[in-house]
Order: sequence, then structure tokens, then C-alpha cells
Amino acid sequence: MGNGVSPSLMRQEIEQQPAVLTATIEALLPRRAEVAALAAQTRQVLFIARGTSDNAAVYGSYLIQAHAGLLTTLALPSIATTYKARVDLSGVLAVALSQSGRTEEIVDSLAWAQDCGARTLAVTNGGEDSPLARAAEVAFVTRAGPERAVPATKTFTTQLAALAVLALGLGAPLDAGELAAAPAAIADLLAGELDLAPIVAELAKVPGAVVSGRGMAYAAALELALKLKEACYLHAMGLSYADLLHGPIAVVDADTPAIVMAAETGPTLAGTVDLARRVTSAGAKAYGIGGGATLAQACSRSLPAPALPEWLAPIGLIVPGQLLTEALARNLGLDPDNPRGLSKVTQTD
Amino acid sequence: MGNGVSPSLMRQEIEQQPAVLTATIEALLPRRAEVAALAAQTRQVLFIARGTSDNAAVYGSYLIQAHAGLLTTLALPSIATTYKARVDLSGVLAVALSQSGRTEEIVDSLAWAQDCGARTLAVTNGGEDSPLARAAEVAFVTRAGPERAVPATKTFTTQLAALAVLALGLGAPLDAGELAAAPAAIADLLAGELDLAPIVAELAKVPGAVVSGRGMAYAAALELALKLKEACYLHAMGLSYADLLHGPIAVVDADTPAIVMAAETGPTLAGTVDLARRVTSAGAKAYGIGGGATLAQACSRSLPAPALPEWLAPIGLIVPGQLLTEALARNLGLDPDNPRGLSKVTQTD
Repeated sequence: MGNGVSPSLMRQEIEQQPAVLTATIEALLPRRAEVAALAAQTRQVLFIARGTSDNAAVYGSYLIQAHAGLLTTLALPSIATTYKARVDLSGVLAVALSQSGRTEEIVDSLAWAQDCGARTLAVTNGGEDSPLARAAEVAFVTRAGPERAVPATKTFTTQLAALAVLALGLGAPLDAGELAAAPAAIADLLAGELDLAPIVAELAKVPGAVVSGRGMAYAAALELALKLKEACYLHAMGLSYADLLHGPIAVVDADTPAIVMAAETGPTLAGTVDLARRVTSAGAKAYGIGGGATLAQACSRSLPAPALPEWLAPIGLIVPGQLLTEALARNLGLDPDNPRGLSKVTQTD
Repeated sequence: MGNGVSPSLMRQEIEQQPAVLTATIEALLPRRAEVAALAAQTRQVLFIARGTSDNAAVYGSYLIQAHAGLLTTLALPSIATTYKARVDLSGVLAVALSQSGRTEEIVDSLAWAQDCGARTLAVTNGGEDSPLARAAEVAFVTRAGPERAVPATKTFTTQLAALAVLALGLGAPLDAGELAAAPAAIADLLAGELDLAPIVAELAKVPGAVVSGRGMAYAAALELALKLKEACYLHAMGLSYADLLHGPIAVVDADTPAIVMAAETGPTLAGTVDLARRVTSAGAKAYGIGGGATLAQACSRSLPAPALPEWLAPIGLIVPGQLLTEALARNLGLDPDNPRGLSKVTQTD
């Protein structure tokens, strides 16, 4: 940063995350009761989403199954829109995620779910007047403000915060105070100096990378892989820990490092540390994000993540990943704000 | 084939499919009533599977949502085994798929589902005495016989047949006679001559390919991508039609052809034809599998598929894909029966 060059929009939006997360959490936490009213009739959750929002839904799925004890499902793309099938959705809470709130397919699929008997909730940064917010019984409007860089950053983390409120509303016995404290932990990380340069220099030389994480952290791994593809044209594959071990571990080599992400605590840390050791003993580089000293010691290089409990870890884990993506794009001579071939869906706020 | 060289085990097992499918369908069709008894208490289906079996579960998901009107979910890997979470699975039919019937994680996950309140069904080629069959209330044992080539072929198509019986048992208003006639349609295809050589010659020169299909056909596309990766070390990506259009269409170029698969009829054919046209107009090769004359005309080259109704199409669509995989492996000087780095999970019969 600095050097007289004005920071990219992406970098500015990364830095805005503590403030917009605070605004989002303050707006949504008081609305847990509305979810609790829906929850009384909810046996399971159906997520309707695409792209970055789909990665947020993966977080919601692990969080709600692991902590609220309800089954979750990601909607199949064509069942509503192509097959126009009638599916029994009684007892289902359909949760549609769209940053703009105007993606026609998502709005149509939510209307389909309602026709099939589901209760409905929207998570959107598109405002109370967006088609998606208007189509849902309960609208969780995130407070990310307008996002101008094409790679989504603050609209993603505020979606995750909204899903954390959803899990609390659905009865997950977790501490809302920990969610309220998350923006400060992210601000602490952003205030420090991350030593991105050595990892950026090495990633700039490889054609591809694997990004892996397990359980909650898997959502952050998928999202980082998407960012690296979008902004750096790196052939980045987001793979779960289990998928990576069951075969594609062979893709990791001297030219294909692995980025492994984990919370500092929780049941998936040990497996992630083991994975990092397998990667390095296969002669490949492993870059750790989060996972505390244990993961850092097992990796070739590592970046710290904000200090957060496991259930909130992805909100923090993605932040060093965003900074890495932005720095790598600039190192490669690319404009992180305007990747080729991608355009932003209309954003309103 | 021929030329005095004995055919590969993979090729022999591909050829066995009409016979083992007939045996499987004759064994399982009469057991629809057992499923119907479970179905009375079933609000939704939870699939527990990995690898090739996961691709079969994708077929089951589209089939059951589109035609039996029940929601389906693919189980998340770590919820049962790592988080050891209690999830409310009352009203859920858990369907576990494992070719060997002895994959510990799958057996453990089915036991977890039962503890959480689910009814249970197993689909396995491992016999009535396999741990998975013994753990389930209803065991659908497929009759593929021992599979010796490492790439699964007949164990996959017999899994699909078992899932078609499951859908009928769950009330899908489809014609069981069409399922009973499917092996003959596959035998007709195998009796003819497929002109594999031109596509094999072109695929032998590229480092990667995209394999795409929509709805029912998506399962066949995922499975063909897996076969090409396993047996030909081709960097093959299985992508849904929608995912391909929302971004990665840029990966298709002169060095990266697309293989597109579709049933001859049904709501996803038009979109697949449109996708093939987009691929060829972008200067890349599109190879069609199935989809009748309409898809063939939109593609650079094409292979016919067995004549099957859309709900059964994947059972047939994968067969030309298996033949293509086997022929490409041999063309590349590889042994299709024993890919490097992969071993068969213990198979019993």
C-alpha cells in the first residue's frame, strides 16, 4: 500500500469489513426472534444460491447441521427452473442468497420454493426494496454498502454474519457475544502487518494451486479458490480435505502448492495439520492460513487469521485470503478491481 | 478389440453390462413394495456416498426430486464422522451407496443416520453379508459380479438401476417396463460399431477437457470426467451446464474441448444444444454423447447413446463414455485396468 499509489477498490473494501460487519450484526442480531418463529415449523433448511453466495451457503450448511441440529440442502439448479418439478417442501425453510437481490433465477427459485410449501428467508445486500427481499417472508439485508470491485469481499463476509444470526435464530446454542466481537478481531488482523510478499512471489510462478479446508473452513477454502481464479487467473481448485486425500493428492507437486485453512481450535484442525504434513512430505509447498502455531509449524509458510471461535472462523479466515488475492493480482500486473471477462451484477444499496 | 490381443478387463466388464443390469433389475424390481413401506414415513432422502457412488447419488437426487417430488440431500462428509453432530433425521430415508459395502466411513455414517432417527437403505455390490447391507433396514444388492478393472463401470450402472427402482418405490409415476427394457437398449449400442477413433486421436493431444450435462445427464458427465481422470490422467472437469455458462466457459479453447451429454428428449436438451453451439463458435471442439440428431448437428463430432427415456438416460449415456475412456487409455499406452496410484477397494460378491 501507500507509495503514493491509491489503493485498489478491492483493498479499500477489504478494509471496510470491520465497520460493515458491525453494522450488519447490529441490524440483524435483534431479529433472531423472527427466525425463531419460523424455526418452530422448520425441520430443515434449503439454500438457494450461486457462485460466491453458494460458498456462503456451504458455511451455513455446516454451521446449521453441526450446531442447530437441522439437516440442510443446497438446491439443485434445474429442478425449479428447468424441470419445474413439484417437490414437497412442507417444513422446509428456504434461504435464498443473492448479493444484488436481483438475480432472476434466485428470485424465481425462491418463489418456486414458496409454492411448494416452504417458508422463506432472503439474505441480500440489495436493500429492502430488491425483488429478492420483497419475495421473502423475512429479509436479512446486509449492510455492506455498495461494492465496486468485481471480486466480492465485504458482501461475502456480511452474508456469513447473516448466516451466523440465522443459526442462532434456529436454536444453535452458541454465544451471540462472540459474533458481536468478530469485527474487532478482524480489525486487529488488518491493523497488523501480514507478510504476504514471500507467498505472493512463489504463487506468481505457479500455474495452479489447491485450496483445502474441512468442515466450517471448507467454505472459506472454496471462496479463496474462487477469488484466485477470478482475480489472478490462477487455476485454483477448492477441494475438501476428504476429497483431496481420496485421490487428487497426486495433483499437488512442485508446481502445484496447497493452501490449507483451519480454525485455531475444533475437530478439523488435527486433520488439516496432517494434510499439510503430507503435502510437504510429497515435495510440494503448503501455505497455511489460520490454524494457530500447530498449523503454521506444519506448513512451508503461513498467514495468521483473526482470533475467532471455530463456528465463526470462516468470517476471519477469508480475510488474509482476500489480501493475498489482491496482492497477487497486483504482482501479476493485473487490475484486481476489474478482472477480464467478469462483470458485476447490478448492485444497489 | 480383436487383433489377437485379448480385450482389457475394463472392456469385458463394459460388455457385461446388459446381462448384469438385467439380473439386478430382476432382483430389485419386485422389492419396490419394501421401499413403498418405508416411503410412507419418508419426507426426504439423504444420500451417503463417495467418489463414483457420489455420482450415482447425483442421479438419484435429480430423479427423486424431479419425479418423486421429495427433497434430497447429499450428506456432508464431516458432520457425522468429525463433528459427531446430532441432526434431526426423523422422516428421512438415509440411502448409503458403497460398491464394496465395506467402506468404514459409509457404514459409520449410515449407523449415525439411524441413531439420528432416519430409516435406512443400502445399495451395494458387496453382497447381503457385507457390513453395509447388514447395517441397513433394506439392502438393495446389485448383481454386477466381481469387478476387476480399477475404473468402475458395471458397478456404477447397476447402482443407477437400483436408484431407478428406489424412485419407483418412492412413488415416481414412471414406467417400470422402461427400466426392464434398458439393458436391451445398451446391448443394441454395444452390438454396433462406435466410431471412437477420431475423437480418441484428438483427445490424445489435449491436456484437459470439460465434461458437461444438465439435470439427469449431469450425473453421467461427472462420472465420465472421473473415468477420464482415473484411467487417462486427462485433466477433465465435470461441470454442470449452468456452472459452465456462469464463468468457466472461458476455459474452453483450442486445447480444451468440451464433451457434452444429453438425453434424446426432455427439458435439458435444448440448453445442451445451445451450449455445444457456444463452444464451437468460441473456436473449441465439442464432442456430443447422446442427444439425438439435434445435438450431433451442433457438435464437432459425436457418439450415439442407447435409446432410453430421459429418466433412464444416464444408465445409457455413460456407456459410450466408458468405451471412449478405455480406448483413449490404450491409445495413450496406458493400462486401463490398472491406473497408477489407484487401488480397488475390496470387492466381494
